[in-house]
Amino acid sequence: MTLMEDAKKGVITSEMEAVARSEGVEAKMICSCIAKGTITIPNNTQRECRLIGIGKYLSTKVNANIGTSRDYINIDDEVEKARTAQAYGADAIMDLSTGGDLDLIRKRIMDAVELPIGSVPIYQAAASQKAVVDMTSDDMFNAVRKHARDGVDFVTVHAGVNLNSIQRLKKGDRITNIVSRGGSFTYAWMIHNGEDNPFYSEYDYLLDIAREYDMAVSLGDGMRPGCIHDASDRPSFMEFITLGELVKRTREADVQCFVEGPGHVPIDEIELSVKGMKNLCDNAPLYLLGPLVTDIAPGYDHITGAIGGTFAGMCGTDFLCMTTPAEHLALPTNDDIREGTIVTKIAAHAADLAKEGQKERARAIDDRMAHARRNLDWDTQFSIAIDGERARQIRESRITGSGACSMCGDLCAMKIVNKALEEEEEGK
Amino acid sequence: MTLMEDAKKGVITSEMEAVARSEGVEAKMICSCIAKGTITIPNNTQRECRLIGIGKYLSTKVNANIGTSRDYINIDDEVEKARTAQAYGADAIMDLSTGGDLDLIRKRIMDAVELPIGSVPIYQAAASQKAVVDMTSDDMFNAVRKHARDGVDFVTVHAGVNLNSIQRLKKGDRITNIVSRGGSFTYAWMIHNGEDNPFYSEYDYLLDIAREYDMAVSLGDGMRPGCIHDASDRPSFMEFITLGELVKRTREADVQCFVEGPGHVPIDEIELSVKGMKNLCDNAPLYLLGPLVTDIAPGYDHITGAIGGTFAGMCGTDFLCMTTPAEHLALPTNDDIREGTIVTKIAAHAADLAKEGQKERARAIDDRMAHARRNLDWDTQFSIAIDGERARQIRESRITGSGACSMCGDLCAMKIVNKALEEEEEGK
Repeated sequence: MTLMEDAKKGVITSEMEAVARSEGVEAKMICSCIAKGTITIPNNTQRECRLIGIGKYLSTKVNANIGTSRDYINIDDEVEKARTAQAYGADAIMDLSTGGDLDLIRKRIMDAVELPIGSVPIYQAAASQKAVVDMTSDDMFNAVRKHARDGVDFVTVHAGVNLNSIQRLKKGDRITNIVSRGGSFTYAWMIHNGEDNPFYSEYDYLLDIAREYDMAVSLGDGMRPGCIHDASDRPSFMEFITLGELVKRTREADVQCFVEGPGHVPIDEIELSVKGMKNLCDNAPLYLLGPLVTDIAPGYDHITGAIGGTFAGMCGTDFLCMTTPAEHLALPTNDDIREGTIVTKIAAHAADLAKEGQKERARAIDDRMAHARRNLDWDTQFSIAIDGERARQIRESRITGSGACSMCGDLCAMKIVNKALEEEEEGK
Repeated sequence: MTLMEDAKKGVITSEMEAVARSEGVEAKMICSCIAKGTITIPNNTQRECRLIGIGKYLSTKVNANIGTSRDYINIDDEVEKARTAQAYGADAIMDLSTGGDLDLIRKRIMDAVELPIGSVPIYQAAASQKAVVDMTSDDMFNAVRKHARDGVDFVTVHAGVNLNSIQRLKKGDRITNIVSRGGSFTYAWMIHNGEDNPFYSEYDYLLDIAREYDMAVSLGDGMRPGCIHDASDRPSFMEFITLGELVKRTREADVQCFVEGPGHVPIDEIELSVKGMKNLCDNAPLYLLGPLVTDIAPGYDHITGAIGGTFAGMCGTDFLCMTTPAEHLALPTNDDIREGTIVTKIAAHAADLAKEGQKERARAIDDRMAHARRNLDWDTQFSIAIDGERARQIRESRITGSGACSMCGDLCAMKIVNKALEEEEEGK
């Protein structure tokens, strides 16, 4: 029995109850949304993981990407990154390793953290070959099966990169064509082998595997725009349409899913992308990488992503994939993962402050901070802050004797107004 | 003759021509917008400064705040911060010093950079007293006159904090009351002295001074919300209304101005704030501090400000005041000023990508970056990047022999797709 089968029968399971408790909502609502496919709780039957709900009425979640590359293979480093992401508040982790003993790395990461783990099996199928295009469709499905058996909670498959979307690409005028790694493998494979994408043409087989392990499917956006110029174009929307059709089939197979989205999108097109995807994919939970709101800020793409992510969250995005300062430049370090996770948590919270169903809960936290600020109660401020440690460090590096902060000292607006209010009160 | 007098007569001056050249627009348009008050070029007659236009149809500008505090008085540090802000692309600098020899500090900063300089004269009037409330209204106006004579290009006056807005404050339910430093001085002064704000009640006198030196007036938002809870409330809108009336009087006096805005605003209320202010202030150029989209990220308020600033820019904000990582915590260091300036430049550019009239120019830059990315042309990428130095440093810290970056190495999507396209081309 998959969770979705239970949900469709109206059975409220312990997983639904756990998520309902942590979100402060009714388990019945969770059950009904899972049945409809608007909430997903990724949790492979082969693994115990923290139960998180992604989707409608729930708080915005954050994923951290980690993993080795061909050039930097250090398992301990990746395990440390996974622990850092968890410690700083990530809700899920994707292992995107492409270098070294991939099975061992995945196992080590899954053992190190309790968060749900996602992966991209085609990376392993491709990375095991001399050339990406040499893998067979069996290699691709076998990689999926291996990950499922190992307990991966959700897998990304780029099933939307098919002959149809590639036709749209060829008739378009993209600058960066395909920038999704899995999308590029799939595209190269299709060109080389003269066949359609097996994950698309044999999608039912993929669903069989996913159902067996109750593994969630993350419908990857292999055609996502890789620059501002390419945003919201016909290949993007063609893929949204295909993904929407696959969402329908996934739900019919009682498998949970979510849909991945762009990418690089200017701020005035984010609403279009988010609402377009939600609409074309029948309100499946939406998982965005960014979106990055400009191309020209390498070194700061955790910030361009947080800008886009906040607005996308407000428009209805459920799950934000962090970007790090190393995006477009290098394999992230542990510090990059820390920074990326924190900044994406900020975006998720800022989105929740504006999301129906989340506003009240989220605003109560900011209100507590506001009271602590007015009272110059620094310890409470640091305890509420997303990264109280860094806040404390900055304050203490340049202290003042005034009780305020060293920006204003005894000219602090809070101090002056608090005093004026007292004076007024006494005068009455 | 003030620039606005010229503009109203249809005289196209060298200042208008300079801005038109740097923005790639018609000088006639600049002239007509200055006449209407929708573009401001701050430039005191006593000082030569870089000519920048702020307002309609123009690129989004960035201001950097620097200045000593009571507890940290080091003139060389502040001069270095001013140089840093200019070097990293700020369009204007405000000297907010409150500690030390304020005249000397202001002079040193004005000598060190060519950017337009703004100040808040009430800081000097208040800081020279034993208690803020001891200053006289003469002290306040004398400070304005001194700054004008010294060549300050724009001054902030919190003329919107008056008996009316304070009534709205008292009938409301704010948590943080007044968080503007100048606003708090004014409020305390009014309570203590039982009089209305001189900058409001004698606003014509202020305009006389400003006109004499053709100094622009920045209508400060002393009532700006200091937390998410207080955003978009009645005291805020009361101040917008007052500021709108003052905009009208300022224009009638042939003095250029802009209007300052919040503050802390959740992302779903930013459009309301920006459009509300634009509407109530007859499309005066709008200058925002942030807005910060959450209260709970001290240490990262350059980022919460960049998130709000990008969206606010898209909604029509003309001028973004940077926040730094030290916001709410300490006097910023030189590194903080660098970081704050860069991140705010990112927000301004991301806003321009979405602004009518700016899109085409801004997108051309991102398109060049996208081409460089596809071609794995790293030197060009670094030359286009907002902070190419840091981008290069990150890439070079973890290099790969593949020509790509160390995230993907030879599994780089760009490399794989470029190769597949070649293969396809040859196959034809």
